[in-house]
Amino acid sequence: MPFAVDQLESEVRSYSRSFPVVFDRARGARLFDRSGNAYLDFLAGCSTLNYGHNHPVLKDALLDYITNDGITHGLDLYTEAKNGFLHELQATVLEPRHLDYVAQFPGPTGANAVEAALKLARKVTGRTNVVAFTNGFHGVTLGALACTGNDHHRGAAGIALGGVTRMPYDGYLGAAVDTAAYLDRMLSDPSSGVDAPAAVIVETVQGEGGLHAASFEWLRRVAAVARRHGALFIVDDIQAGIGRTGTFFSFEPAGVRPDIVTLAKSLSGYGLPMALVLIRRDLDAWKPGEHNGTFRGNCHGFVTARVALETFWRDDGLEQAIRRKGEILEERLATIARRHGPGAAATRGRGMMRGLDMKSGEIAGRVVKGAFERGLVIETSGARDEVVKCLAPLTIDEADLLEGLDILEAAVAATMAEAPKAAA
Amino acid sequence: MPFAVDQLESEVRSYSRSFPVVFDRARGARLFDRSGNAYLDFLAGCSTLNYGHNHPVLKDALLDYITNDGITHGLDLYTEAKNGFLHELQATVLEPRHLDYVAQFPGPTGANAVEAALKLARKVTGRTNVVAFTNGFHGVTLGALACTGNDHHRGAAGIALGGVTRMPYDGYLGAAVDTAAYLDRMLSDPSSGVDAPAAVIVETVQGEGGLHAASFEWLRRVAAVARRHGALFIVDDIQAGIGRTGTFFSFEPAGVRPDIVTLAKSLSGYGLPMALVLIRRDLDAWKPGEHNGTFRGNCHGFVTARVALETFWRDDGLEQAIRRKGEILEERLATIARRHGPGAAATRGRGMMRGLDMKSGEIAGRVVKGAFERGLVIETSGARDEVVKCLAPLTIDEADLLEGLDILEAAVAATMAEAPKAAA
Amino acid sequence: MPFAVDQLESEVRSYSRSFPVVFDRARGARLFDRSGNAYLDFLAGCSTLNYGHNHPVLKDALLDYITNDGITHGLDLYTEAKNGFLHELQATVLEPRHLDYVAQFPGPTGANAVEAALKLARKVTGRTNVVAFTNGFHGVTLGALACTGNDHHRGAAGIALGGVTRMPYDGYLGAAVDTAAYLDRMLSDPSSGVDAPAAVIVETVQGEGGLHAASFEWLRRVAAVARRHGALFIVDDIQAGIGRTGTFFSFEPAGVRPDIVTLAKSLSGYGLPMALVLIRRDLDAWKPGEHNGTFRGNCHGFVTARVALETFWRDDGLEQAIRRKGEILEERLATIARRHGPGAAATRGRGMMRGLDMKSGEIAGRVVKGAFERGLVIETSGARDEVVKCLAPLTIDEADLLEGLDILEAAVAATMAEAPKAAA
Amino acid sequence: MPFAVDQLESEVRSYSRSFPVVFDRARGARLFDRSGNAYLDFLAGCSTLNYGHNHPVLKDALLDYITNDGITHGLDLYTEAKNGFLHELQATVLEPRHLDYVAQFPGPTGANAVEAALKLARKVTGRTNVVAFTNGFHGVTLGALACTGNDHHRGAAGIALGGVTRMPYDGYLGAAVDTAAYLDRMLSDPSSGVDAPAAVIVETVQGEGGLHAASFEWLRRVAAVARRHGALFIVDDIQAGIGRTGTFFSFEPAGVRPDIVTLAKSLSGYGLPMALVLIRRDLDAWKPGEHNGTFRGNCHGFVTARVALETFWRDDGLEQAIRRKGEILEERLATIARRHGPGAAATRGRGMMRGLDMKSGEIAGRVVKGAFERGLVIETSGARDEVVKCLAPLTIDEADLLEGLDILEAAVAATMAEAPKAAA
Repeated sequence: MPFAVDQLESEVRSYSRSFPVVFDRARGARLFDRSGNAYLDFLAGCSTLNYGHNHPVLKDALLDYITNDGITHGLDLYTEAKNGFLHELQATVLEPRHLDYVAQFPGPTGANAVEAALKLARKVTGRTNVVAFTNGFHGVTLGALACTGNDHHRGAAGIALGGVTRMPYDGYLGAAVDTAAYLDRMLSDPSSGVDAPAAVIVETVQGEGGLHAASFEWLRRVAAVARRHGALFIVDDIQAGIGRTGTFFSFEPAGVRPDIVTLAKSLSGYGLPMALVLIRRDLDAWKPGEHNGTFRGNCHGFVTARVALETFWRDDGLEQAIRRKGEILEERLATIARRHGPGAAATRGRGMMRGLDMKSGEIAGRVVKGAFERGLVIETSGARDEVVKCLAPLTIDEADLLEGLDILEAAVAATMAEAPKAAA
Repeated sequence: MPFAVDQLESEVRSYSRSFPVVFDRARGARLFDRSGNAYLDFLAGCSTLNYGHNHPVLKDALLDYITNDGITHGLDLYTEAKNGFLHELQATVLEPRHLDYVAQFPGPTGANAVEAALKLARKVTGRTNVVAFTNGFHGVTLGALACTGNDHHRGAAGIALGGVTRMPYDGYLGAAVDTAAYLDRMLSDPSSGVDAPAAVIVETVQGEGGLHAASFEWLRRVAAVARRHGALFIVDDIQAGIGRTGTFFSFEPAGVRPDIVTLAKSLSGYGLPMALVLIRRDLDAWKPGEHNGTFRGNCHGFVTARVALETFWRDDGLEQAIRRKGEILEERLATIARRHGPGAAATRGRGMMRGLDMKSGEIAGRVVKGAFERGLVIETSGARDEVVKCLAPLTIDEADLLEGLDILEAAVAATMAEAPKAAA
Repeated sequence: MPFAVDQLESEVRSYSRSFPVVFDRARGARLFDRSGNAYLDFLAGCSTLNYGHNHPVLKDALLDYITNDGITHGLDLYTEAKNGFLHELQATVLEPRHLDYVAQFPGPTGANAVEAALKLARKVTGRTNVVAFTNGFHGVTLGALACTGNDHHRGAAGIALGGVTRMPYDGYLGAAVDTAAYLDRMLSDPSSGVDAPAAVIVETVQGEGGLHAASFEWLRRVAAVARRHGALFIVDDIQAGIGRTGTFFSFEPAGVRPDIVTLAKSLSGYGLPMALVLIRRDLDAWKPGEHNGTFRGNCHGFVTARVALETFWRDDGLEQAIRRKGEILEERLATIARRHGPGAAATRGRGMMRGLDMKSGEIAGRVVKGAFERGLVIETSGARDEVVKCLAPLTIDEADLLEGLDILEAAVAATMAEAPKAAA
Repeated sequence: MPFAVDQLESEVRSYSRSFPVVFDRARGARLFDRSGNAYLDFLAGCSTLNYGHNHPVLKDALLDYITNDGITHGLDLYTEAKNGFLHELQATVLEPRHLDYVAQFPGPTGANAVEAALKLARKVTGRTNVVAFTNGFHGVTLGALACTGNDHHRGAAGIALGGVTRMPYDGYLGAAVDTAAYLDRMLSDPSSGVDAPAAVIVETVQGEGGLHAASFEWLRRVAAVARRHGALFIVDDIQAGIGRTGTFFSFEPAGVRPDIVTLAKSLSGYGLPMALVLIRRDLDAWKPGEHNGTFRGNCHGFVTARVALETFWRDDGLEQAIRRKGEILEERLATIARRHGPGAAATRGRGMMRGLDMKSGEIAGRVVKGAFERGLVIETSGARDEVVKCLAPLTIDEADLLEGLDILEAAVAATMAEAPKAAA
């Protein structure tokens, strides 16, 4: 399907290669192409559309705001839109969780939030090293990229990526090796060669890295190790946060209290570019304007983000729905995996951030292709793109969820049926 | 004026310190605070609002798009919104200027565009060094920050900023020293200690650096030096582009053809986060997804950007208007400067990107304060914040432009009248 | 004991703090201070004096050479002295071991040899990352220091030490964890975040790191992992080589064939500054003079090094003697360790590179002090200086060896007898 | 002339390519090859043999020391040899010049001295950046190499060389541009992009860089600029020091007092590996052993260095002789240059550190070849090896000096006579 438009855009484009149609409209869990064909969306902007596409409540608020000539671009001026978001965040998210954070709007991307978090940690501690984990993904600007594990992205830097020590994530060395203890050992040994870190940065579930989910115990121990060695504990909650794993912050059930939290993706609720760094109040060592950027006050995002908090997080309805649908997801994926045996498929993840490890990027790619032919948009992640990742909107109807899982099941079955032939 | 909201936001906020009111609505060249007071806007989102706030044509298109459930968040999928923008860009901007570029959407911030441009240059050339100039500003993520000159921002990195060689901008060593020849000398000498660069990155007018405008001759010579030494010539047109200096790209009158151009700020036309890297077609060495990011397909931005091109760039009306208003600006600023003498004030800049060098950050700050008390939002730039920077919307009425200049003149006069007392 | 001379020398001096006398003469295993007091030397220049002080055969050769006005300083010109050494090295060391290496004289220090080895590995592979191990010590110039684990030395860099990934040495995570497999895992996983390395650099016994001895199996596996991933396998044999562990190269019994070997310390045999990089012939990618240095042709060192090879390595007499004395050392240290129990002392090391882990730097320091009071010069190593390190000359008489061990035993006994009191 | 020995040594060897004979003995200003042929030596170990080869007074002292079993290798223990040198240095060099320095022995090479100086400067100031100059040469270990300008050496690093800002040396931009003022400007401008430096490191005459000699005024101004901006002023006196330019330290006539001085090359006086860092007493912030190394106590070097100070620096006889011979050199080189015209040859340098800029590396190489055929060992330096560098021993007889200059003159004449033919 060659588009003339391909000649206008750089070869760097990627998702359009998996889904070679032109999308036009979207609503809830469904995308529509220019011919009017509908697709269930289990990609959801890589967890950017946790409330689905163009949620009507958010949409109405945004239309009102625009119609009334609300400030669109506010640098970091005081605006009603920002104030409204900040007050709602405080009342609905931070206070009930007893989190005494200040908010930094670092520019409207997750990578920018990570860059800001790393800078602040280095500034506060006076140290340069940062501990990041195998299979971690934290963005592709140079500071964030140094924390990212994927060599496809790292290789594009064209310059040495320094200031990061890589450690094995929970389970990376098998169940028998306690990687939190290893981290502690390396930081305790004055001759280990690992410089005292400014921060330990971790995802509770590794979205791009293949849906590895850390145990709560491991997260608590890593947090404790960081503290003991004078390092800030940063949770990068860009993909796993905003309800994806079952709670607003993904780290809540682990009982840890990060020093810094990064949020982006589903923060605006409407898919608008917006990011946030939450900083333990006493660590807010920024001087005015030290980290700046033109789009750090995207008021459209402030408006929809505020309304999303009002709509979904003032009570526990969404959390309960995520739990229920997460269980459905878990059960159905387990069934699929069982059918094909542990050598062919395994489940991964937590909450509504789950997927199937197909043990092969080639096979997972064929599952994705088969699913799309059946009307489901879904993608892979993992070191070798071997994990089919279900990131349905959290607000999806159960019927749609089941329909999508049926498609996935069929696509897996068809792929596995062909797999021997393909290999032969 | 303490807001409760200040306790919710990090100390990193900056512009809100100069303008301690809460803004609510905006239209054209005017901002309104929550009490309904109007302010003329000569800051314009640091040149992000070249067509003013909430331009009605762009607004209508955006409202339509949202109302019809157009895709909001499209990763880098094919969407009608993106296609529409790409075709308009090709037809209205690139083809008429005989520029054979492909477009990369690198994430919706200028810093991201710079990061992508640097990566690509390093990838294409296999070199790591990049030449950047004194007083340059290219963003604050780690890769971009290495190119940025300002020590306030550099100091926040908390880690060494490498891979960049700093060279003096046009005029930095006085009129007698040809800094393009110096650059050539350094790159020609195998023992200069300056490693062969992947790229030379330059702003034609340094927005944040204090409105230093390079001569066209110097730009041509720097471009030639880059070519001769196998380095890509990158124009960072994030602040000076999209008409600010009089032409769509700021480098047009110099007659240079950059290998890479970075755009952001006024690209969407409506203040929405959007950025673009234009890449000489034969240099598009990206592999799929090597540089990625969640918000590289902000469809709202695509829509307003397309309509902005249709509205303002299909003919030369805007360019003529900029020329006329640029002359007004030049003349009025020169008059102000003359009044106070060359030791007190001097003009800087080009097109509608002009300002007054007040020779002192303290004095410039007082001018800004005085202007705001008189109803004008305007800011400073420069190494010591010594330049009062006029970035009125390009579409401003001449009457409003004159009104703003009257306010500025009064604020300067009042400040200078007090200055001796203050100094005493 | 304040010397006026202390006011002339920087506070950086270190060994003189442990042994506050002025040494004057030395012969074999004995040092003499200016008052004529004799001390047994179990420090031996940190394994630089494997043939003892001022060995008479080497001394006579050196005196002859100087008397006859042999070239002293030869840059890297052809000299009889260099030729003589190269031919002897080839005939006596390389050929019999079927090692097809070329020799580089990189400047007369071990750190310089490591710097040259790292440069060459990066040049040959086009990669920048290097894998080094916990507790490794490779020198303190900036390139070598990046590979060194000790934070006391690393902290003095004053600048980020990049380009090195730290991995756990054999046994670092306990006997149950196979750290060679972990290394393989990290290098095989495209998303581990560990960039493909130019080299893996390893000591077979970590001299400064506390006498950890790698198993031969582990060395073979690490060598294989390096090969499999396209990395050069570098053995830093500066302290463990030249017979210290029982064979000329410490890696011989493991059956590995490094791509690059670094030698220094005992290479000249007489304590003269001299270093050597041995390079697999097909990897000799150096261009003339790419790595240079004024003192890379220290002819006095060439002369004594040649005579040392002639005297000690043309037959296996020395190897047999090392084996015998290594066993004595092992047995006596084990006896001492047993007496005080596993919580108080443990043996470490291989060949005549052995010591006692006293589990505490403070206690080890008191043992060293007590030994010196009894006439034995001996020092500590290890992350916390907790290992008392026996590095007697390889040529020491058995009687002297036993006398030294008797002193050590007494010093340990006295220290342990006092320890509870000290702790109380 | 293929030697079998070439197959044993790495391709990195360089000087042996210019002088393809095997040297055997040397005395004073003369080298002898194995066939007994004599060569005048105007290379002198690149200024390592300022007192000539094997000076008899130093030789006798060294023979005595070795014969009496003086300590050869002393780590950094107190030894009579070190004490003797330190006292003589204090009495003969430092006190008379009112220099209150402490001495650090950083390992026996110039590169090591530079590494130590940079570390200390970074440690003392808490800054990482260092200012170095075009055409500077400071060694090839990674820290020193970052300061070195030559791309042949820099390119071998295989890793980014960071932490250094390159500035133009005196005269680099022509006589009209004051490069000290430029440095001041860059360090004064908070937006120049040049981070506040820990140190400014400079050679007063650039030995490897092509014998550019800084003016005393420029040195004073650079020293003042460094002070004003809180940077240490380091003079790398490794090649220009120890009398080469006419005084013990090359900076004496400029009247500057460096914070740190690095010395090596001719320090031992006999060509033995030895280096020294002189540190302003109040800047001696080293902790014990922070910068260490096996060969930092080369006692043979201490002995000959002490005797060299006693012999040559207790009175001003040598200084007067250098002045006289420097004038001869200047006059003769000027005569040669005049003969061939300013487009073909020009003089460079100061004292007895002078040469002829032949404007072409190819031509200079032919001069060197022709000189060797006539019995003179002499080499080139400079960015393109275009400068024929006369580094005769300071102690050379005037007759020998004139003989060498006659040979040089003849070699230049022969080369220039052939040059047109060669070019034709």
